[in-house]
Amino acid sequence: MALKIKVLSHGRTILARKGEMLAEALRRAGIPLNLFCSQRGLCGKCGVEIVRGKQPAPGEREKFLWKQKSLPRNQRLSCLFEIQSDLEIGVPSSSTLQEVPILPALPRSSVFFNPAVKKYVVDIAPPQISAPESLLELVCENLGVRHLKISPHLMRELGPRLEHAKYKVAVIVHRDKEILDVRRASRAPRLSGLPLDVGTTTLVVELVDLETGKAVDTRADLNGQASRGADVMSRITYALSGREKAEELRALVLDSLNRLISQILRKNRIPLSSVYEIVVSANTAMNHLLLGVPVHSLAAAPYHAVFSRLPYFSAQETGFAAHPEARVYMAPNIKSFVGGDITSGLLASRLDKREGNFLFIDLGTNGEIVLKTARSLIATSTAAGPAFEGMNISCGMPALPGAIYKVEDIARKLKVSTIASEPARGVCGTGLIDLIAIFLERGELSPGGAIQNREKRLRVARNISLTQEDVRQVQLACAAIKTGIRLMLRRNGLKEADLGGVCIAGAFGNYLNIRNSMRIGLLPSLEEKKIVFVGNSSLAGARQLLISLKERERAESLIQKARYRALASDPLFQDHFVKALELKSWP
Amino acid sequence: MALKIKVLSHGRTILARKGEMLAEALRRAGIPLNLFCSQRGLCGKCGVEIVRGKQPAPGEREKFLWKQKSLPRNQRLSCLFEIQSDLEIGVPSSSTLQEVPILPALPRSSVFFNPAVKKYVVDIAPPQISAPESLLELVCENLGVRHLKISPHLMRELGPRLEHAKYKVAVIVHRDKEILDVRRASRAPRLSGLPLDVGTTTLVVELVDLETGKAVDTRADLNGQASRGADVMSRITYALSGREKAEELRALVLDSLNRLISQILRKNRIPLSSVYEIVVSANTAMNHLLLGVPVHSLAAAPYHAVFSRLPYFSAQETGFAAHPEARVYMAPNIKSFVGGDITSGLLASRLDKREGNFLFIDLGTNGEIVLKTARSLIATSTAAGPAFEGMNISCGMPALPGAIYKVEDIARKLKVSTIASEPARGVCGTGLIDLIAIFLERGELSPGGAIQNREKRLRVARNISLTQEDVRQVQLACAAIKTGIRLMLRRNGLKEADLGGVCIAGAFGNYLNIRNSMRIGLLPSLEEKKIVFVGNSSLAGARQLLISLKERERAESLIQKARYRALASDPLFQDHFVKALELKSWP
Repeated sequence: MALKIKVLSHGRTILARKGEMLAEALRRAGIPLNLFCSQRGLCGKCGVEIVRGKQPAPGEREKFLWKQKSLPRNQRLSCLFEIQSDLEIGVPSSSTLQEVPILPALPRSSVFFNPAVKKYVVDIAPPQISAPESLLELVCENLGVRHLKISPHLMRELGPRLEHAKYKVAVIVHRDKEILDVRRASRAPRLSGLPLDVGTTTLVVELVDLETGKAVDTRADLNGQASRGADVMSRITYALSGREKAEELRALVLDSLNRLISQILRKNRIPLSSVYEIVVSANTAMNHLLLGVPVHSLAAAPYHAVFSRLPYFSAQETGFAAHPEARVYMAPNIKSFVGGDITSGLLASRLDKREGNFLFIDLGTNGEIVLKTARSLIATSTAAGPAFEGMNISCGMPALPGAIYKVEDIARKLKVSTIASEPARGVCGTGLIDLIAIFLERGELSPGGAIQNREKRLRVARNISLTQEDVRQVQLACAAIKTGIRLMLRRNGLKEADLGGVCIAGAFGNYLNIRNSMRIGLLPSLEEKKIVFVGNSSLAGARQLLISLKERERAESLIQKARYRALASDPLFQDHFVKALELKSWP
Repeated sequence: MALKIKVLSHGRTILARKGEMLAEALRRAGIPLNLFCSQRGLCGKCGVEIVRGKQPAPGEREKFLWKQKSLPRNQRLSCLFEIQSDLEIGVPSSSTLQEVPILPALPRSSVFFNPAVKKYVVDIAPPQISAPESLLELVCENLGVRHLKISPHLMRELGPRLEHAKYKVAVIVHRDKEILDVRRASRAPRLSGLPLDVGTTTLVVELVDLETGKAVDTRADLNGQASRGADVMSRITYALSGREKAEELRALVLDSLNRLISQILRKNRIPLSSVYEIVVSANTAMNHLLLGVPVHSLAAAPYHAVFSRLPYFSAQETGFAAHPEARVYMAPNIKSFVGGDITSGLLASRLDKREGNFLFIDLGTNGEIVLKTARSLIATSTAAGPAFEGMNISCGMPALPGAIYKVEDIARKLKVSTIASEPARGVCGTGLIDLIAIFLERGELSPGGAIQNREKRLRVARNISLTQEDVRQVQLACAAIKTGIRLMLRRNGLKEADLGGVCIAGAFGNYLNIRNSMRIGLLPSLEEKKIVFVGNSSLAGARQLLISLKERERAESLIQKARYRALASDPLFQDHFVKALELKSWP
């Protein structure tokens, strides 16, 4: 006969069998209970208050967890609670699944916390002569799994560590498949993880508490490779100029990253050995260079990456500053040209979950464009060139202090804003877009891009002006993106009016003036509210992948589903590109 | 409507659907077709002759395999053959599952060939700009799997190797999960594997052709550790006398093994880099020492092994002379005291598949006894001491040339036989048993073990005689085994008459005189035909594990099922042991 469980906190009554575990009944009924350890009585996170009904006496394991985790005594762990009678219970919010926010800009952009690396504190009954299990078997048994992988090194350490800890240990496990570490329970480390955004120009390291999923701190720096070429192609060319050059590039980016990692850990007083997982979000060239994988197949037709999805490598194998057994997860690349940074971006911006037709645009040196329709996900990349990153522009500079990032035309006078309000030293991408739009509006620039004055210069501020050549660079960058968007829409039978919205990713962030971007034709003319800035979605996606195994499955299925469309080989490309050089709004 | 396939070779007619693959229909009907590559069109081993019926034109893949493997043109590969009409076919024996014999002594002791390491030769269509799969994806696709693990090193080599081979490559894969190597198809290695029997005294290395499963050659030598103690306990004691001592023991056994490996490979002209898998069969102490895992938990109560089952380590990680990515499989230990050598022995002797109650006895320094009943598998070990290996006996020696291995009493004169017919230098285990039985029969030895002459010496040959102390050593060894067998039977409600048979494993081989063994009480008194010598079943089992993944599953389930019974803590032990010291036949 079925028993009734009245879940007061959720206003529901569910049915259960006598003898069934309470957690199981709650899980089946869809109550979002935190089952971090998969109901194995290890994590102490599924406590419920029993308001009425028969309570079996708590066992050793439950008592141990009460003490170990300082759990409230009025709570019983539901995965260790056998149902004996009808019950009335309350599920406190501390025992339901934790949602971790990802992109503050997006409503409902959060994931359920379920990291790959977990720490289980167990009090193992020391071996008995009458029960001759091996030590590794004892550990597995206590973790409720049949077999765990272990490195030869840790295998050798296992006995001494268990004894030294008197068999009260914290076992750090990866995907419930591999033991990464065994530590004394009383000195168990607080697990940390690092999402890394490895950009061509900029590197960003985030420190995440792997026991809550929350971001603790962020730190950024220039990619040490920058001195060897500004864009991806020049890096690849450098790498191909000699075997030691590729090694050099690898060392440069790795050193920059490891320096950032050391700094952020030191500042937050976290030991290196507490970092058990790293997630890397990078474009194809960057993740190849970072791993020391040859890039020559990326450089010449038929342009192929060596990998898109990788197995888990260890920090030791890859050279990262972390616990040597820490695992490294690479956000998978979408085919050969669209990197893991875009996969991360799609995850963070929830592109696959949006209704209708949606565009995702990453305005970097390689303009990546992804179109999501009801049926498909199509990615492409266009060589926009580094103009939007302030490169190849006479007065250009990256978005650093002193860069003009915003320009307004007030009573025919230019009002410039600089980063950190420092004296203007140059113009970065967003400033360029504002300037081109203003000069167009004023008629000082023809739609064809010709400067309409004798000196062929557009003055911006003291010592800062745009040359004809600068305008050409912006036109080319703009046309590449515009052609990309146009062809993507057209080849899928869509018009811009069919778009539900556009996510803009990249360093531009909220500084991009939407109206001006539409004015020069960079973005299609849509209602402003349809444009969503998702900021550094590469980093946000990396964090998401770090704290949720479910998101890794989502990433894998995303890259399986995505198709790639090569723009350069499209017979319409040339024609559209030439037309798109004209600086005017859509259509 | 179902189509009819008349399988002439097997005298059967089976049904199939139109459009179904022929291999699938044959597999479903239980025809033992060789599906080495799991019907992925890679191995070319499932050819059938089409006698009558519609034949679709062969595709690129089939043509490639015909050429690559020089297949007979009258055969079609059934996993690439789509059924279009009723058929009459013949399945040649070359296309059915190969059985590989394991122990020649045992009828039906053979396993189906299905190794962990497989080589697939593929002709990959080089990347196309329009199909931007990464190189790793292309390889996986061509092997018909979604994802394969790969080491960082091979990841870096993948591009150059594919290009150099013009995309015609042999991919060496482990359990269809990991890529171990990628080589030019035209220079594909012939895969080799090594079963190793790592005994306390003797090491045996076998060379197995991993493409047929056949043993090619064998080579044996003394364990280099022997100079640091004759038996397991003295080795453990030595290892515990200092951290560098354990390292020394590891190096000693590893060096001995690697020397044997190099010799056997050189003799058979096989390069080291063609060895892709090693299976180790060893007792618990030996496999711990070999991997550098501390043995102190094996030395003192509660006597625990650190591991029983291990993940796959690489040759590089473990120090074996083989391809660095070769995988090492350890025959799993049964609990803490009964090693992988016994697991191998049980597999090779098919103990689990025998009807009724059966004993398996390994007469080594540690006498291991396993009882298989209808319901259970119980293992124990008894400290027999090294007497049967010729140690601790004044005139004792191992079974080496010059050792008296057989003694007969012909008209009250001893007729001794020596190994290699060399002049007698000492007595080995089987000779000792014969001598004790003969002297008992003659009345020169009392059942209590007292020598019945004044000089208290039993003369055997010139300069060779047994002392009273020697007789005591044999009595102790014999009593340990006898007590073990007796308690195992008694605790499971059995008498010796209930035994269907006894498998005797160990170096003794066929030299053991069954009648004499029964006379002194070492073996229970059974019909002689119930005693089966299985020889070096540790090595045979290792080969079995090497060539069949199915056998690894069997080993895992064997060790899961097996229970261990500690003899020393049995309250009946002392009493039985004292009684068993009397040299007389059962009961």
